[in-house]
Amino acid sequence: MSLHGLYLLAIVAEAMSGALMGMRRGMDLFGICLVGTVAALGGGTVRDVLLGHYPLGWIAHPEYLLLTAGAAALTAVAARRLHKLRMPFLVVDALGLVAFTVLGCDIAASQGLPTSIVLVSGLITGIFGGLLRDVLCNEIPLVLQRELYASVSLLCGALYLGLPLLGVGATATLAAAFVAGLALRLCALRFDWQLPRFGDETIRGFD
Amino acid sequence: MSLHGLYLLAIVAEAMSGALMGMRRGMDLFGICLVGTVAALGGGTVRDVLLGHYPLGWIAHPEYLLLTAGAAALTAVAARRLHKLRMPFLVVDALGLVAFTVLGCDIAASQGLPTSIVLVSGLITGIFGGLLRDVLCNEIPLVLQRELYASVSLLCGALYLGLPLLGVGATATLAAAFVAGLALRLCALRFDWQLPRFGDETIRGFD
Amino acid sequence: MSLHGLYLLAIVAEAMSGALMGMRRGMDLFGICLVGTVAALGGGTVRDVLLGHYPLGWIAHPEYLLLTAGAAALTAVAARRLHKLRMPFLVVDALGLVAFTVLGCDIAASQGLPTSIVLVSGLITGIFGGLLRDVLCNEIPLVLQRELYASVSLLCGALYLGLPLLGVGATATLAAAFVAGLALRLCALRFDWQLPRFGDETIRGFD
Repeated sequence: MSLHGLYLLAIVAEAMSGALMGMRRGMDLFGICLVGTVAALGGGTVRDVLLGHYPLGWIAHPEYLLLTAGAAALTAVAARRLHKLRMPFLVVDALGLVAFTVLGCDIAASQGLPTSIVLVSGLITGIFGGLLRDVLCNEIPLVLQRELYASVSLLCGALYLGLPLLGVGATATLAAAFVAGLALRLCALRFDWQLPRFGDETIRGFD
Repeated sequence: MSLHGLYLLAIVAEAMSGALMGMRRGMDLFGICLVGTVAALGGGTVRDVLLGHYPLGWIAHPEYLLLTAGAAALTAVAARRLHKLRMPFLVVDALGLVAFTVLGCDIAASQGLPTSIVLVSGLITGIFGGLLRDVLCNEIPLVLQRELYASVSLLCGALYLGLPLLGVGATATLAAAFVAGLALRLCALRFDWQLPRFGDETIRGFD
Repeated sequence: MSLHGLYLLAIVAEAMSGALMGMRRGMDLFGICLVGTVAALGGGTVRDVLLGHYPLGWIAHPEYLLLTAGAAALTAVAARRLHKLRMPFLVVDALGLVAFTVLGCDIAASQGLPTSIVLVSGLITGIFGGLLRDVLCNEIPLVLQRELYASVSLLCGALYLGLPLLGVGATATLAAAFVAGLALRLCALRFDWQLPRFGDETIRGFD
């Protein structure tokens, strides 16, 4: 399956996640479609605006908007029947995170930016959709709290940029990024792996 | 009355709405002016950044900032005497939503973008000011929840783009968009028309 | 000490403030680093996107990201030992606000923009980092509520632009902006100086 096909699957999965969160917050059909679309396309949009990379993906391909808004609306209508889709959803979401990361790295690399920014470009593409979704739903973004979402993106970006330097071919590199990303993400969910927190050590007066 | 005059009236109305929401959240005079300005000019700003359409309106016309910040400050000082202005406010707000939509469509069309993006450009111009206002005030955006605000914008955009294709002249098209937008918006407020919601059908585990 | 050295000190201070707020909200190590980085570099980023001024500062200088993420991570680890740093922090934060403002004014002036936009560019650089930090932490932005943060930025910008017109030299102008900004900010904190609020005069129905 091509990277582009995976990207389309991934924006559908993110639109579903946005739609379900909008529904929980009592949004109407328009709000559900907008939150779904922002969850799906927000990461790439933030990346392109920060890099000055115009036109944005969904402006060059308006059919993406139709796809994400349609997936969100369908999710709203069919939500009760989606229980069985949870495992496929989590797999597509994890694969999508890797696809977002890889595509984000590619765009920054095509602009000749330094490696650190290429990695950050993949990270922004991977996480800012979910981050904006949560801001619109008036929540502290999940991605800042748990689930190693950002760590998965950074690991995959590092593999995607690093393995070719070790002589690994393009296909094997992509495969390694996807396998590692999927494995880390599903383990993080299954075993509740977390990054450290420091809440009880906090002090006041620095804001 | 010209479209530009209506635009100026509309940004004053949106600045008032932002100021009153900032006041309710206990903001100080600066916060009130900033939230008013974001409510008034945020939609056009988001549109221009997404389209890569520089310079932004308020950078080319800094007097808009003075107008919106001044309207917000005046609202703060005179709020108690504004009760009688509620009906005129709602009419100007509805007309402003149509004016924002039409101007947003025009800017995307002038860049030669496809019809779907022209419609979305009008929608973004119409709703993102209020959306950013609510994010700054730590609320789930009203426009994602009720009042058909986005639907009014989409209807007006569709009329504005569609009627000329049916041979309707420019003036009649504008008039139709304004009459339809005003009627739908005021009916939505009066009769509490809503888009469907799906809150009780929601399920967990997809975020 | 050079303006650039002060800028580097200031982004470290802002990264600390973001990290401490992220810790209080229970964020994990990644969230803490991201909120710290957004607090430090968000103001300049918003300014550059609004002005269409590319490449962004941290894309041209990726080492800034390392500095802010590192400062945030160090803050998380060492937070309990930071109590004694509160006074130095507040002084660096105030000096940093002036440095942000002055650098923001310079960038808009270098684009030949009108004086009002130059002032607003300084203001945006000064306050939007803290504003985005608070949005990510699901708080009404502090800068919209108290502490004269925005007023300090506007005063310093006005001195920085106005004194040269009165024949004051560049060094004396900078010195005056820093002294006035530091004095106003520390007095505001010490004596709880506030801009007026209007909460009890608010009315409903205008949103």
